[in-house]
Amino acid sequence: MLISGQNNLIFRPLEKEDTYSVCLLLEQLSEFPGGVDAIDIEESWNKLAACSNAYAVVGISDDKIVCYGSVIIEYKIRGGRSGHIEDIVVDQQYRRKGYGDLLITHLTDYCKAAGCYKVILDCYQETVPFYNKLHFNATHFGMSRYL
Amino acid sequence: MLISGQNNLIFRPLEKEDTYSVCLLLEQLSEFPGGVDAIDIEESWNKLAACSNAYAVVGISDDKIVCYGSVIIEYKIRGGRSGHIEDIVVDQQYRRKGYGDLLITHLTDYCKAAGCYKVILDCYQETVPFYNKLHFNATHFGMSRYL
Repeated sequence: MLISGQNNLIFRPLEKEDTYSVCLLLEQLSEFPGGVDAIDIEESWNKLAACSNAYAVVGISDDKIVCYGSVIIEYKIRGGRSGHIEDIVVDQQYRRKGYGDLLITHLTDYCKAAGCYKVILDCYQETVPFYNKLHFNATHFGMSRYL
Repeated sequence: MLISGQNNLIFRPLEKEDTYSVCLLLEQLSEFPGGVDAIDIEESWNKLAACSNAYAVVGISDDKIVCYGSVIIEYKIRGGRSGHIEDIVVDQQYRRKGYGDLLITHLTDYCKAAGCYKVILDCYQETVPFYNKLHFNATHFGMSRYL
């Protein structure tokens, strides 16, 4: 288990019991159709936990979950590994404390330990400076197709 | 097994025996340090094959592998699924035949069948029009950090 702490913030891997709280946190980013109570927590936890190449982490402060993030390790057929950071959120009441920096650094360190040669993520224009500060550069166009 | 064919092109899931040919194909995109012979084929195949959420496909024409692509299904903690398309390559000698379109459509159909609500990928500016034609839109900045 990877646990690290700094600035009154402790990281630990997501546990099943955290799922509801994390979903509430993610509602701060975008609303889920039907709200958090419409989510089949059991199902979503089981699906995520079954992926051996996925790592999800919560940050705890004041005995509550104040941030969440995840990473998927992509094993390339040529042998390299690439980390994909997804679903980053920091509780609105805990912003401007550097928790986002610590979270991205934690996930990047995880990717490094997992043998990745790079870490990638998609973001909107307004968060580009935040990621630049953390040594991420805009190198590609992030394309989406909704199904 | 998902097999589909059109325009003298047949798709089938990557098999271990394809790995060397696919690595040669990927050399057309970017050179691998030390070349293809430096790749531990056994190791890279085993790592990829162990990921239950990864799908890699080859396109066969004239009895040889002429294109390759892969997708990772990301299971989100809120229950949604997102498909990440990676490592798209079409043999230089088989371009301008619409094989790239067929490959991306094949992978998108796979994501749809896997229950994804969206498919994402990163590309350089010169391939944005190609993906636009296939209903992908540039929605994000693709950020990278090399480790």
